[in-house]
Amino acid sequence: MSENSQLMDKIVSLCKRRGFVLPGSEIYGGLANSWDYGPIGIELRNNIKRTWWKMFVHQRDDIVGLESAIIMNAKVWHASGHLKHFTDPLVDCKKCKNRFREDQLTDKKKCLTCGGALTPARQFNMMLKTHLGPVEDEASEAYLRPETAQGMFVDFKTIANLTRKKLPFGIAQIGKAFRNEITPGNFIFRTREFEQMEIEYFVEDKNWEEQFEKWLALMKEWLKLLGVKEKEVYFHEIEEKERAHYSKRTVDIEYHYPFGTKELYGLAYRGDYDLQNHAKASKQDLSYNGVTPHVIEPTWGVDRSFLVTILSAYTEEQAKTAKEGETDTRVVLKLPVHLAPFKIAVLPLSKKEELSIPAKKIAADLRKYWITEYDETQSIGKRYRRQDEIGTPYCVTMDFESLKDNAVTVRDRDTMKQERIKITELTTFFKKKLES
Amino acid sequence: MSENSQLMDKIVSLCKRRGFVLPGSEIYGGLANSWDYGPIGIELRNNIKRTWWKMFVHQRDDIVGLESAIIMNAKVWHASGHLKHFTDPLVDCKKCKNRFREDQLTDKKKCLTCGGALTPARQFNMMLKTHLGPVEDEASEAYLRPETAQGMFVDFKTIANLTRKKLPFGIAQIGKAFRNEITPGNFIFRTREFEQMEIEYFVEDKNWEEQFEKWLALMKEWLKLLGVKEKEVYFHEIEEKERAHYSKRTVDIEYHYPFGTKELYGLAYRGDYDLQNHAKASKQDLSYNGVTPHVIEPTWGVDRSFLVTILSAYTEEQAKTAKEGETDTRVVLKLPVHLAPFKIAVLPLSKKEELSIPAKKIAADLRKYWITEYDETQSIGKRYRRQDEIGTPYCVTMDFESLKDNAVTVRDRDTMKQERIKITELTTFFKKKLES
Repeated sequence: MSENSQLMDKIVSLCKRRGFVLPGSEIYGGLANSWDYGPIGIELRNNIKRTWWKMFVHQRDDIVGLESAIIMNAKVWHASGHLKHFTDPLVDCKKCKNRFREDQLTDKKKCLTCGGALTPARQFNMMLKTHLGPVEDEASEAYLRPETAQGMFVDFKTIANLTRKKLPFGIAQIGKAFRNEITPGNFIFRTREFEQMEIEYFVEDKNWEEQFEKWLALMKEWLKLLGVKEKEVYFHEIEEKERAHYSKRTVDIEYHYPFGTKELYGLAYRGDYDLQNHAKASKQDLSYNGVTPHVIEPTWGVDRSFLVTILSAYTEEQAKTAKEGETDTRVVLKLPVHLAPFKIAVLPLSKKEELSIPAKKIAADLRKYWITEYDETQSIGKRYRRQDEIGTPYCVTMDFESLKDNAVTVRDRDTMKQERIKITELTTFFKKKLES
Repeated sequence: MSENSQLMDKIVSLCKRRGFVLPGSEIYGGLANSWDYGPIGIELRNNIKRTWWKMFVHQRDDIVGLESAIIMNAKVWHASGHLKHFTDPLVDCKKCKNRFREDQLTDKKKCLTCGGALTPARQFNMMLKTHLGPVEDEASEAYLRPETAQGMFVDFKTIANLTRKKLPFGIAQIGKAFRNEITPGNFIFRTREFEQMEIEYFVEDKNWEEQFEKWLALMKEWLKLLGVKEKEVYFHEIEEKERAHYSKRTVDIEYHYPFGTKELYGLAYRGDYDLQNHAKASKQDLSYNGVTPHVIEPTWGVDRSFLVTILSAYTEEQAKTAKEGETDTRVVLKLPVHLAPFKIAVLPLSKKEELSIPAKKIAADLRKYWITEYDETQSIGKRYRRQDEIGTPYCVTMDFESLKDNAVTVRDRDTMKQERIKITELTTFFKKKLES
């Protein structure tokens, strides 16, 4: 097994063992690469989304938020071209009836499973279809959105009028999208149900190049907030022949995953393609202050952001054990503090009430300010190991000495340095550490 | 038109006019009662969800979070009984072919539209169906979850083992759910796509009554956080004959909406019905520390929380106008401060650069701490009116006098009192007002 596939196995195992990511519907044998975010994972995921919203909506004056419905009028997907063009080429094995994506086969004539002959490719639409209302017919057909973007285009004019923003301005959305992927895989990298963070940034035609550069810089800034280092990503300028016909520039931001260098985020200049299409199909005037704006579209996946945050934070290092002269491998997630699921863990050395009662009180006091876990089960070594693996920046240990000196030990995740701090000074101590 | 239906019209109009809630897919003529949350609405909605998560997950030691997939293995819905029993009785008009929910007709024999005769009722499943993978057959059938609850039951044992919590403990989830309602309506009250906040609280059989009472009290506490007054809600004890067979106690928390007294939240004691069903169907042992826990299930709708927050905050009052002796109706959303989309609005008296440049700087400084809007368009009167209608607690007005005295006017939403505050003291002023 290569080092890289070993790393991926370790990450998947850590995610399951510590409650970051669990197999979906597991007691029923799962469901084709579907995943649930567990108690620790949901906190990291929420922190990523909150950080994004803060950076791109709350701290700016020119971008506003939106949450449009997942199920939109089917005419949206006619106008956007998704019903016609959002397809994968599929081939069937004539012998064993298995189905494959043609573009993922190295030998386009032979079945991967049994070697049988393959049919010619047919185009297969990747939107998940459902029916609204009591009758299942063509009129009631509806689709789960395959991207959040169309909500921003369809609501563009209303929001522009409501907010009276001047160009350039943007609309941001975080939300679920669905794609009927034939070959989902690589853990949470490609799943049928996923979440996007997307901005449609409306600019004047003549300014698109300058604005594109600004967005490229902002996307680099964002990666720093996840703790992703520059050498881990590759900015891939998409060549003209591979770009959508309406795009004059597209950059794929790729990450060096253990399973290869693949897409993480995308930045595309889409011209006025989308607004013109919707204006035509809906017969509505979607121009604003006399012009149809052009669009810069930066797109981030929540699940991929989550994955690269963990990959970039994952560290193995040699650390001393309790036995003198011995070392052991310490696994620690060096997450940026603002993303850590818990900021502090309070760990009494023993479950005995003389320690657990005051330790619980400390946890309750700290919890008023920071997300704080209290844990009294298992040995202190195992508990440190757990907190390291979920990236908790500080552990507070209460021991029998604490009952005499009214102080506790605070351990730093990254340096493993321990400091003795008076209980009455803990809040001040953490305010300095966590809010500076 | 009755006073109540007028009130509902006013709310819908305010929500649209100010960007709280917009009709979904509007440029395409909409889509059967689907709604988008606009720039102001998404902030209120996020604040409600964040407040809930803080109260029930972050500030407690006994509840952990989860985000399970919307599309689960179809076996889940077999085991839970949804495939068989989650149905509405439908009747067809033999003449005009319209379809109705039988339980919503006063005369069960006549068509509401044309008066024609109706067919006998048939059971119609309310789950939205789709197909995963390239083949549309029975084996690929999947459903959009009609509730978030089953995710917590299916993952219960894994999460219990991971977190090593002792009973009683709970799992909380916020997420979208879908129901193929035949008669969606009353604005965002009943929609096909909606969001739930739900907790499954696992207890020992013998403690259920005591725990149920605790949850009833907590749900009352929660209503206070939304600004909902006691007289606006009715706690409806569901009688035995109307309860699900496995429930020994269910309370519907109803709200006096302008369109009638109807369900807002629910609290149900579900016994061990769900875990036993899933244990049987999956052939997995779902007992924990030797017992199969019983379940108390409090359920909140995000959309209904949003609606009652606005209804409870909506106020019309007579206020003086600029002309002496004249008054006008002032519409103000008296939202609890922690839920207000913007905490502060900065409004320069004129667009001229001598005011707009320093006013933008003030907004940028305040934005570091609080969600702050900057608005320089339209007359100051219209801008106050807008901020009142979206519930902004404080408006900061910069006038030409500000250039001399380095001070601004701060206006309080509820009292309309104005105070002159030095620009250098603004942050301290708002820290006292907004963080006490």
